[in-house]
Amino acid sequence: DEERSSDQVCTDPYASDPPRHPALQINSQKPFNAEPPLELLGESYITPNPLFFTRNHLPVPTIDPATYHLQVEGPPGGQTLSLSLDDLRRFPKHQVTVTLQCAGNRRSEMAQVKSVKGLNWGAGAISTAQWGGARLRDVLIQAGHSPSGSEAHVCFEGLDSDPTGTAYGASIPLARAMDPEGDVLLAYEMNGQPLPPDHGFPLRVVVPGVVGARQVKWLGKVSISPEESPSHWQRRDYKGFCPSVDWDKVDFDSAPAIQELPVQSVITEPREGQTIEPGEVTVKGYAWSGGGRAIIRVDVSLDGGLTWQEAKLEGEAQAPRRAWAWRLWQLTAPVPTDWKELNIICKAVDDGYNVQPDTVAPIWNLRGVLTNSWHRVHVQVAP
Amino acid sequence: DEERSSDQVCTDPYASDPPRHPALQINSQKPFNAEPPLELLGESYITPNPLFFTRNHLPVPTIDPATYHLQVEGPPGGQTLSLSLDDLRRFPKHQVTVTLQCAGNRRSEMAQVKSVKGLNWGAGAISTAQWGGARLRDVLIQAGHSPSGSEAHVCFEGLDSDPTGTAYGASIPLARAMDPEGDVLLAYEMNGQPLPPDHGFPLRVVVPGVVGARQVKWLGKVSISPEESPSHWQRRDYKGFCPSVDWDKVDFDSAPAIQELPVQSVITEPREGQTIEPGEVTVKGYAWSGGGRAIIRVDVSLDGGLTWQEAKLEGEAQAPRRAWAWRLWQLTAPVPTDWKELNIICKAVDDGYNVQPDTVAPIWNLRGVLTNSWHRVHVQVAP
Ligand SMILES: [Mo]
Ligand SMILES: [Mo]
Repeated sequence: DEERSSDQVCTDPYASDPPRHPALQINSQKPFNAEPPLELLGESYITPNPLFFTRNHLPVPTIDPATYHLQVEGPPGGQTLSLSLDDLRRFPKHQVTVTLQCAGNRRSEMAQVKSVKGLNWGAGAISTAQWGGARLRDVLIQAGHSPSGSEAHVCFEGLDSDPTGTAYGASIPLARAMDPEGDVLLAYEMNGQPLPPDHGFPLRVVVPGVVGARQVKWLGKVSISPEESPSHWQRRDYKGFCPSVDWDKVDFDSAPAIQELPVQSVITEPREGQTIEPGEVTVKGYAWSGGGRAIIRVDVSLDGGLTWQEAKLEGEAQAPRRAWAWRLWQLTAPVPTDWKELNIICKAVDDGYNVQPDTVAPIWNLRGVLTNSWHRVHVQVAP
Repeated sequence: DEERSSDQVCTDPYASDPPRHPALQINSQKPFNAEPPLELLGESYITPNPLFFTRNHLPVPTIDPATYHLQVEGPPGGQTLSLSLDDLRRFPKHQVTVTLQCAGNRRSEMAQVKSVKGLNWGAGAISTAQWGGARLRDVLIQAGHSPSGSEAHVCFEGLDSDPTGTAYGASIPLARAMDPEGDVLLAYEMNGQPLPPDHGFPLRVVVPGVVGARQVKWLGKVSISPEESPSHWQRRDYKGFCPSVDWDKVDFDSAPAIQELPVQSVITEPREGQTIEPGEVTVKGYAWSGGGRAIIRVDVSLDGGLTWQEAKLEGEAQAPRRAWAWRLWQLTAPVPTDWKELNIICKAVDDGYNVQPDTVAPIWNLRGVLTNSWHRVHVQVAP
């Protein structure tokens, strides 16, 4: 009918998306996906809210905080809690500094091996903030769930949805949610401010040590299930496969959903293709690992991996088992006078002594996720 | 005096070491260090006791089980528990299947890059047994320690000692010992038998997911300390460093003691240099990761890493967070008729999506520990 077709023509579901910082490098406008330039990202331990990488799967929903309620399903036979923002603020407030990384961070490097399906992220799909909110554990216990749960999953549904009404969804193991040292939050603050619209206003999940895709924004509903979330993004996306597996033969049920991410590091300065001054070079970057594993060392090579030097880790040593945030690092080293170019590489080691693989081709996968091979930057030395 | 000098000449501290299985490949006779041949190791999920790799730092002590007592220090101001074997058997008995790996497993591959200090282990310094005993947690609580401990360490002392009386020692974080899901044992059984003399009779520590060096055998004493064990092996050994660090500039305090080990896999069949029949090849091996991380995939290449196939994991899927034992795996694949040789490689992925590095030189370290690069076997194809 006429009214309906007029709706289809005139209504842009992204029309109420918020304004964004002009420095962001946009990978997709609708839905909005963007990353900060590396030179800004590597500048500060805490990423300013306007520069925090944004990974939206759907339009940003407009939510009235005055009427917002989170639905938390109780155990079988129990009741559903309906919590306003004021109700959530009455739980003990926890503040945790956590690095979030998209599974697709550095996908553009993997795509150079062989094409992959996904947004063409550079190395900036990672950022760090101090998040404030209620512990998910506390809210689940309030809803009647036992803290010593079985092998169940906590399922999250966002209030963002596609034209058919399907909401974004994901899940994490209940054991992680209930771990008193797991620091899983229902966050209403990001760096001391209410969550910005692009980052889940008024409430999102923050799951330290875990891939961004599980940290559902604009959170509408929480429930416990013996199975993982049935959502596309939990079951048919965000999984890793053998390089031989392509779209003609992929079996998504054969691989586990990504939760913890492997050890990662990236050079944020100098930039690829730059010409540096002779004499000495300063190399800067970030390093992070999933599962609360601390970064214990970053090795840097200026000669394509023949020799290595240890970078200086900035900031404080990280708490064991709860190293949720990245370490920034730097190395200043002399450049031999006869070198015309540098092939700079970084690689990090976490406290399980996990290391990054040398090259990207052997970890290639059809969705282009989990790129954590050595990061390489080639620069010229000015004469 | 005469008696003393006669002692020095005539008394071999290794004289009472036990007999060993003739199939073991001996890296050092005194102290005894030996590994099973890979073709036997890859044969069974549970390693038979006589074939379990043996890593002794000192002579095997002779201990009378009838008079043996374990000393467990209480908290400050508390008493020391002195527990006989019967006392230990009165705690609830736990049985856990755990793979133990020496930090030096595969050191011989690292030594080919540049010489390292340590026993020349092949890829057999790893084995799997079902261990039975009391939970360390239960014993510590009995001794008066709080299960919700601070950032302290559990220190272990062996009853093996050097001529100056210094005992083998090591420590683990108290949080791991107290974790009800950590499964740390004071084990008196190995595959249903009393511990053999080479494996710690009558009592040893078993710390699932952690390097062998912390799993103190012939256990004499347990204590809690705000600091790690002061032993040489905790403070001045069993740590990883940047490849640029050699003995002239190593600072052992700069690196954390190895606890959890990174993801590992090895080809046990065919063997290096073997000639295989044409037609098809069966590749077998083991894969394991530290920290209870499960093996989710093993990729095998027959062409030096250009293409990969997924191996079949044997046995059952592993419990999340408590995947303490290895997975054996195999792949049977056709060999193209015009191939005269195979460059076989394996690499494993754990459930944190950690992977093995491509090559060994960039993870070289002066003690030759933590070799977990891709395992490679070169074979000829019979005409
Ligand atoms: Mo993501
Ligand atoms: Mo070891």
